[in-house]
Amino acid sequence: MRFGAGIWLFSQFIDRYATDAYGPAVSTIEAIERAGAVGDLEVLDINYPFSDPGITVEEVLRALEANRLSTWCITPHIYTKQFRGGAFTNPDPDVRRRAIALCEEAVHVARRLGAPTVKLWPGQDGFDYPLQADYGELWRLAIDGVSTVAAMDPAVRVAIEYKAKEPRNHLTWSTAARTLLGIAQTGRDDIGIVVDLGHSLFAKEAPADVLQLVHDHGRLFTIEVNDNWREWDDDMAVGSVHLVETLEFFLGVRSIGWDQPILLDQFPFREDPVEAARTSIHTMRAIGSAIDRLDLEALEDAQRRQDPLSAQRLVADLLLGQTPVA
Amino acid sequence: MRFGAGIWLFSQFIDRYATDAYGPAVSTIEAIERAGAVGDLEVLDINYPFSDPGITVEEVLRALEANRLSTWCITPHIYTKQFRGGAFTNPDPDVRRRAIALCEEAVHVARRLGAPTVKLWPGQDGFDYPLQADYGELWRLAIDGVSTVAAMDPAVRVAIEYKAKEPRNHLTWSTAARTLLGIAQTGRDDIGIVVDLGHSLFAKEAPADVLQLVHDHGRLFTIEVNDNWREWDDDMAVGSVHLVETLEFFLGVRSIGWDQPILLDQFPFREDPVEAARTSIHTMRAIGSAIDRLDLEALEDAQRRQDPLSAQRLVADLLLGQTPVA
Amino acid sequence: MRFGAGIWLFSQFIDRYATDAYGPAVSTIEAIERAGAVGDLEVLDINYPFSDPGITVEEVLRALEANRLSTWCITPHIYTKQFRGGAFTNPDPDVRRRAIALCEEAVHVARRLGAPTVKLWPGQDGFDYPLQADYGELWRLAIDGVSTVAAMDPAVRVAIEYKAKEPRNHLTWSTAARTLLGIAQTGRDDIGIVVDLGHSLFAKEAPADVLQLVHDHGRLFTIEVNDNWREWDDDMAVGSVHLVETLEFFLGVRSIGWDQPILLDQFPFREDPVEAARTSIHTMRAIGSAIDRLDLEALEDAQRRQDPLSAQRLVADLLLGQTPVA
Amino acid sequence: MRFGAGIWLFSQFIDRYATDAYGPAVSTIEAIERAGAVGDLEVLDINYPFSDPGITVEEVLRALEANRLSTWCITPHIYTKQFRGGAFTNPDPDVRRRAIALCEEAVHVARRLGAPTVKLWPGQDGFDYPLQADYGELWRLAIDGVSTVAAMDPAVRVAIEYKAKEPRNHLTWSTAARTLLGIAQTGRDDIGIVVDLGHSLFAKEAPADVLQLVHDHGRLFTIEVNDNWREWDDDMAVGSVHLVETLEFFLGVRSIGWDQPILLDQFPFREDPVEAARTSIHTMRAIGSAIDRLDLEALEDAQRRQDPLSAQRLVADLLLGQTPVA
Repeated sequence: MRFGAGIWLFSQFIDRYATDAYGPAVSTIEAIERAGAVGDLEVLDINYPFSDPGITVEEVLRALEANRLSTWCITPHIYTKQFRGGAFTNPDPDVRRRAIALCEEAVHVARRLGAPTVKLWPGQDGFDYPLQADYGELWRLAIDGVSTVAAMDPAVRVAIEYKAKEPRNHLTWSTAARTLLGIAQTGRDDIGIVVDLGHSLFAKEAPADVLQLVHDHGRLFTIEVNDNWREWDDDMAVGSVHLVETLEFFLGVRSIGWDQPILLDQFPFREDPVEAARTSIHTMRAIGSAIDRLDLEALEDAQRRQDPLSAQRLVADLLLGQTPVA
Repeated sequence: MRFGAGIWLFSQFIDRYATDAYGPAVSTIEAIERAGAVGDLEVLDINYPFSDPGITVEEVLRALEANRLSTWCITPHIYTKQFRGGAFTNPDPDVRRRAIALCEEAVHVARRLGAPTVKLWPGQDGFDYPLQADYGELWRLAIDGVSTVAAMDPAVRVAIEYKAKEPRNHLTWSTAARTLLGIAQTGRDDIGIVVDLGHSLFAKEAPADVLQLVHDHGRLFTIEVNDNWREWDDDMAVGSVHLVETLEFFLGVRSIGWDQPILLDQFPFREDPVEAARTSIHTMRAIGSAIDRLDLEALEDAQRRQDPLSAQRLVADLLLGQTPVA
Repeated sequence: MRFGAGIWLFSQFIDRYATDAYGPAVSTIEAIERAGAVGDLEVLDINYPFSDPGITVEEVLRALEANRLSTWCITPHIYTKQFRGGAFTNPDPDVRRRAIALCEEAVHVARRLGAPTVKLWPGQDGFDYPLQADYGELWRLAIDGVSTVAAMDPAVRVAIEYKAKEPRNHLTWSTAARTLLGIAQTGRDDIGIVVDLGHSLFAKEAPADVLQLVHDHGRLFTIEVNDNWREWDDDMAVGSVHLVETLEFFLGVRSIGWDQPILLDQFPFREDPVEAARTSIHTMRAIGSAIDRLDLEALEDAQRRQDPLSAQRLVADLLLGQTPVA
Repeated sequence: MRFGAGIWLFSQFIDRYATDAYGPAVSTIEAIERAGAVGDLEVLDINYPFSDPGITVEEVLRALEANRLSTWCITPHIYTKQFRGGAFTNPDPDVRRRAIALCEEAVHVARRLGAPTVKLWPGQDGFDYPLQADYGELWRLAIDGVSTVAAMDPAVRVAIEYKAKEPRNHLTWSTAARTLLGIAQTGRDDIGIVVDLGHSLFAKEAPADVLQLVHDHGRLFTIEVNDNWREWDDDMAVGSVHLVETLEFFLGVRSIGWDQPILLDQFPFREDPVEAARTSIHTMRAIGSAIDRLDLEALEDAQRRQDPLSAQRLVADLLLGQTPVA
């Protein structure tokens, strides 16, 4: 297994109640250094603009090199104040143009940092209230936006991160299937999907199912991992709530032959971020070892029969250890 | 507005606790007579096999005529005991063949009853447990099943009714987008979708959104309506919980120019079914009248600006009446 | 650990779609024999009336003895057809009297079978629709009902099984706290609670939290276990979805010093019930062994600091095994 | 109807994504002025500390008087950075003492502003992860905290605002029943509850039910209103999603004889706050007028029979208008 992380894991957290933030401000350079301190990360998903307009791409590159990290993708901040009413789906064409312009900068920065991908997470695109929006128009604008960004540079592809809600009450790119459908409408093959284990749990999907589905459609561009309580994007340590489904997800990751890094997407509001990252990596390595010990043939045999009790026994023995019969 | 109903609305209800049923047994013929008693229904969605093997298609036809009803679609019982482990996705090829054979009978019956559509609701197709199934294989089998049925008779098309769960813990055809995606994979244009307002609420979709989406893909074959508490398919009277979104849904129905019947899908376990149907029709007619009074231009103007407060005021004035300023 | 089961685990299952049932009819005597075949069960929760009016208490006793089982509690069928509109909360006083009369029979049967408890699960008590009920009146009727049953025989106490919904859309006894509150209003000390792990997950509680809460109030009368997807009472094998919280629950069971049987509450619709029970017992034994290996002091130390990462590492190491550092 | 608002409605919003905030900074004085601009508000729930340490109680009083507003309650900021690990339930006794000290200041300020109540919303009290906390200890600390604050000044009572989650993944005071239970454990009669319509919807309660329950226990100290999608505390305009249950809630408010102000609890991230408040008030007034027109006897009669279809027809006729029979 190879690992990476979203740089926000190492940044300052804030929410609508602790408006004085959960910790001190952290620059992009400091966040890279924290990521380096984890010791097991190879790549970062880096937000653009950087924390400070004075920070140059060269400085970021140097910091990455100093910490033996490279850039997996650039994620433009298309969900901040100026885009609070939407980025690609904003009713105001001027704001939409600004969103596209920011994405264009992100594409350039991706090139310069050697990242093959710009990740788009249009967290303000969607709607809050019933009857607020013309859904057909929202969908057209959303598809136009990602298509426009994908067309900017043949060397930089686009990965869409879907999520059911937050900060909008309903996001336009909400589920894996919806996103595959929208991508098909673009007619482009340089647009793919971020399968985020937590967003999938939160969308009430079976994560291993949509991993396979997105892979089978040739749209699996990147994988992010975390856990949550399935009602919100809690961004918790990997496997901390849904250990069985997390194990199943990593079985899927292995089965499709994924050999790229897997990225952490955590918000350790109240914990040390370096330790939070290490804990997830520790868990994922242990899951990997557990999978090495799993009798895959027996599992496949159970699945051929769609036999849940045999599958459940295999998992219980794997996770809880052989236990003497009474 | 024109109305129809699923015949089950007028049948006997049972569940896993009241195993002695909520009411007496009802034959297909008696259910048709109850449907006729509603007074406002034009069409029925009829389950096949009929309640009793002795009932002939001719008898059903006569009962329909006597009650001024026609057949909107035939829904084969591919979710009874023999299909408890799945119909199209059953691991046993013999059971899969039996499911296809039953669908073939349903296609014939649809022809003879003059119904243009066989509705497929594979309620046992999917999985219950993590690690129980090979998801790629499940999806292939699911798509093969509906394709095979669609190919049976050029005069009878197939409509898939998606639902998130029940009786399986996870159904294969779970959301509108997932179903559109699977239909696209079939490459056929005679497979469409039942947009069921309740299933859409239950899937945490915005019903008016997916109505538009399915319509835009040319896959809107039939519409069913009811309400629920958004966590289960409670099959309640229309508009009883989510009145605002129901109003929005009917605005969408009008906006796409739907002039076909809208079918009730209710399970009035503890109420008189004829009165339950009438109550929903009463509500839908009143919604229709309310929409007649709505200032559509003002709503469209609000939606162009994605302005929820203006939309909310229009709805509040429509539903609650003009109220004197304090 | 000691085990028991609800007798329904070994009975016939039916639901609103597979109305021809998931398996053949099973008599109370046959269900007892199946329970005996599991090999690890000590006690049963037995529904009354028995499957057939011809079955006598003596026959049940003999069957229990032949299978080395005893009766943990009697659960009257106050949720069948005649009680579809409610048992204790039914608007019709005649039906309420019938419910009380059936409970009185159950109390007598409990005595004769040597069971210390009548379990009340008023699954039809509550409401389906907004505005359907006078909530204050519902609550009074619900409390009156359980009080009346508790007062019947000083040797037979009452345990209330709370559940959020089903078959009613909203049940009156919905959560642990609500049930504790209602019990306090009765002023009786012979009314307690069934903490059902699955109902607790489904109610979005933290099961280990409410186990402690109910225990601290002196109201923990019985414990039932299973798992689900947290949106419905799926009654699945123990630990199959929420393994981490199930482990935490069993830590709680040990911590409060529970030495009574723990009862299985499963509905293995599509599986062999004896194997389904054995699988859950296998998992619970393995959880017990895992707890034996857990460094409880380290866990308590983490909990004193409310330190989730340390707790998570302990659990990961316990369930996934020590893994070599990369 | 009389109205008030939480002062935060008029303040600056921020969240974890739009970390540059949804609007400019707003001082406590400016927020009071905005509240005054609504034109229909009588009282405010005011956060303490004020936005700026330089603002005095006298300045606040003058601003309130200038805007014809008074103070309904003071809500201490026990959920900011210093309390991110919990206020009353923080594992560190020093932080717990600081929380108590801040509440003591809030009690003094309440006195000086003439507010009868300090509202406690311990949004950081609870837990995020399974196995993180000793639940019994958490509960004891939570109860101790509110008891200590209630004991500070006989003229200032305490109202607990329960909420299921956020910012903690699980809050200690989570539901109405749980909160009633904890209050009973304090043995005090100066501790009550804020029934927040949105928190109740979000907790999957029936809001009109818990309003009655809390009232019947003599613990209804204050009422807050808003709406949400029932999965998160979206803090939307009143009646915008759950209009039928909102109507039922206001029927309950009238039925218990509530003549105190009802407070808005909204977060209009993307809307003008004054207009957002006015829209909710507009809706509530219209609901009040609708209730005036409702045939209460007919509704009570339906409820006596627990007849949902009659209730539904009354509501449909009230909200949608009499409609001609086809």
